[in-house]
Amino acid sequence: MSMVITNIGELVTNDAGFGKGRLGIVQDAAVVVDGDRIAWVGAASDAPAADARIDADGAAVLPGFVDSHAHLVFAGDRAAEFAARMAGEPYTGGGIRTTVGATRAASDDELRRSATRLVTEARSQGTTTIEIKSGYGLNVADEARSLRIAAELTSETTFLGAHVVPAEYSDDPWAYVSLVCGPMLAAARPHARWIDVFCERGAFDADQARTILAAGQAAGLGLRVHGNQLGPGPGVRLAVEMGAASVDHCTHLDDADIDALASTRLDCMCADGGHSSTVATLLPGAEFSTRSPYPDARRLLDANITVALATDCNPGSSYTSSMPFCIALAVREMGMTPAEALWAATAGGAHALRRDDIGRIAVGARADLIVLDAPSHLHLAYRPGVPLIRRVLHGGVPSHHLATTPDRTEGLPS
Amino acid sequence: MSMVITNIGELVTNDAGFGKGRLGIVQDAAVVVDGDRIAWVGAASDAPAADARIDADGAAVLPGFVDSHAHLVFAGDRAAEFAARMAGEPYTGGGIRTTVGATRAASDDELRRSATRLVTEARSQGTTTIEIKSGYGLNVADEARSLRIAAELTSETTFLGAHVVPAEYSDDPWAYVSLVCGPMLAAARPHARWIDVFCERGAFDADQARTILAAGQAAGLGLRVHGNQLGPGPGVRLAVEMGAASVDHCTHLDDADIDALASTRLDCMCADGGHSSTVATLLPGAEFSTRSPYPDARRLLDANITVALATDCNPGSSYTSSMPFCIALAVREMGMTPAEALWAATAGGAHALRRDDIGRIAVGARADLIVLDAPSHLHLAYRPGVPLIRRVLHGGVPSHHLATTPDRTEGLPS
Ligand SMILES: [Zn+2]
Ligand SMILES: [Zn+2]
Repeated sequence: MSMVITNIGELVTNDAGFGKGRLGIVQDAAVVVDGDRIAWVGAASDAPAADARIDADGAAVLPGFVDSHAHLVFAGDRAAEFAARMAGEPYTGGGIRTTVGATRAASDDELRRSATRLVTEARSQGTTTIEIKSGYGLNVADEARSLRIAAELTSETTFLGAHVVPAEYSDDPWAYVSLVCGPMLAAARPHARWIDVFCERGAFDADQARTILAAGQAAGLGLRVHGNQLGPGPGVRLAVEMGAASVDHCTHLDDADIDALASTRLDCMCADGGHSSTVATLLPGAEFSTRSPYPDARRLLDANITVALATDCNPGSSYTSSMPFCIALAVREMGMTPAEALWAATAGGAHALRRDDIGRIAVGARADLIVLDAPSHLHLAYRPGVPLIRRVLHGGVPSHHLATTPDRTEGLPS
Repeated sequence: MSMVITNIGELVTNDAGFGKGRLGIVQDAAVVVDGDRIAWVGAASDAPAADARIDADGAAVLPGFVDSHAHLVFAGDRAAEFAARMAGEPYTGGGIRTTVGATRAASDDELRRSATRLVTEARSQGTTTIEIKSGYGLNVADEARSLRIAAELTSETTFLGAHVVPAEYSDDPWAYVSLVCGPMLAAARPHARWIDVFCERGAFDADQARTILAAGQAAGLGLRVHGNQLGPGPGVRLAVEMGAASVDHCTHLDDADIDALASTRLDCMCADGGHSSTVATLLPGAEFSTRSPYPDARRLLDANITVALATDCNPGSSYTSSMPFCIALAVREMGMTPAEALWAATAGGAHALRRDDIGRIAVGARADLIVLDAPSHLHLAYRPGVPLIRRVLHGGVPSHHLATTPDRTEGLPS
């Protein structure tokens, strides 16, 4: 079935060769979707016929958000820890073990229900691709089932057995590294596309992280790194050294880190060049919810490093699933323009996942589209906190339609 | 028709004598609504029968948000001005005149549609009472029609002819003050409950503001003041001197301002005492969207001053309609606990509007209620940017029900 979207106020293609600016903005455009792909993009006056029509009513149409960093398979919440932190307790990451305990104790169905709910919540806010990490099992069986459940919800699954050293190995972290690289990796491998390591003081040092990433790479997984969140450290340089697709957080960077990221630009796998093959993924929801200083996106952008934005959705340090919220924070707090932030939340995420079929509106790409409840992409930052996602197409299938009042009255007599 | 809400995870009553803490939290509670009022609150096991039932499924139930400060009658937007400001232009308030031009040029229907859309948007985010100011007409006819339209949408209407001095009076601001106090006030009076003045450098000085407030008071209007937003100034002390219900922004306060606000506590009209009859209303959306330092809520709370939170929704400096977003900012940026922020966004707003029938869940109060998509009020700050408002009852009538995927497919063939 084909479908044409007309009356678009502003079409963001992320195709700089096609439209205006880095966002490739086109006015008076139409888009034709056929099945799960984009079949045609051009001037509304030239649009071919289609089986159905969506009238965007002057609204902006954007690529769906690509959230390249989320931890969605867990049980319980940590609202009380959050409230204590807001009252002055520092964030150390130690609370991860609370979630590990709850996750191990939960049934498959509980984990599946909770993760599905978060994916649905993200979708209603415009996220059409979401990466999901394990990392709250931290034993062979629970890491494997976390990834099995994640794989039911996304193709972008990441094995994060190296999230923290679990309590039972705190005396012998290298023994845990061996477990991760051996039986845990073997059990995770069938369900995972990526491997990730939390390379940070209190988690895994550079040698441990390198060992784990090398084992993942040998098993055919792509590489991702959590680095430089809580302080300076080797995470960014290790990610570049190993050719990771992305290093995430990047809150505390020195000149050597910037140089390392910038040096990878020429390796870029993408046709248009000029950006890094190791993407710097910024997660401002974590700084918001841990009341920490934000990363300096401006410095990265000025060094021509590819920047992605993601939610880091997790119950400890960033329990938001909202990419629009992250865009608003990026503009308010990290010196990004609304256009840079939107690009980072769509095309940037696609680069961080080494995907060229998402994060843009172009013939042949997946039909992952958002119709905003606003005439311009600027409104994502200009109208913070407001649910502006009117409609989402996911692989050509409408998966969300904004409810406006008066609405349904289930549970009430008519 | 009566209706009982059961299976409540946490009931926030704002009745400290009834439940735990300042929020008056009760576990295992039920609420009965009869018509537009709350008829019964108590232990679920004692709940009387009702005609219908809402199963809250373990979710938190809160009083609807009271947004006591919004500017919703206008035309056009200022997205480009916002983008320029984020790129480094300072906010001076001068852009108000852009909106004045667009508003004067708009038809009644355009203004009505735009304001209705924003009220609907706010309602879907849990706001059950919203104050609406004029202030983009700035002539007799356009101020009067702005208030006529506002009065169709809320009973909390505020005449803000003294928003800025319009361009045509810039050489003679006192002539504009005379217009505001004379024919403009007379035309506004039938549609307004309140009068408000923007008492700030570049708008109205203390003498001008006092003259305008006195005229409004003589005409039977209640008093509100915009003060101390862009710098130190006389706004707060003037508001206290005149017995205003609220002084809004309060970003730049000195010790004398704090003392003035604290001194009004004994005049409090409310039964439970201990708070000010001039409420300090904080509008962190404005600081977010103008990249300005936030007000120090902690200092006000520690001086026992009543604090309200509101959106300041307007197209120039704070184009958010989201009270949950303001709560998250209050916790992240202004040193408020999640409980203090929620109280300020409900009971605080009610105090700022001198209303005792809203902002709490108690027998006889209006049936304005929110069912969260979360087990605790903490999630409003813990899950920033996420649409957590599952259901809204407004005067007992369901006005919003959260859409979850898969949803309707209007505009598509079935
Ligand atoms: Zn993470
Ligand atoms: Zn205002």
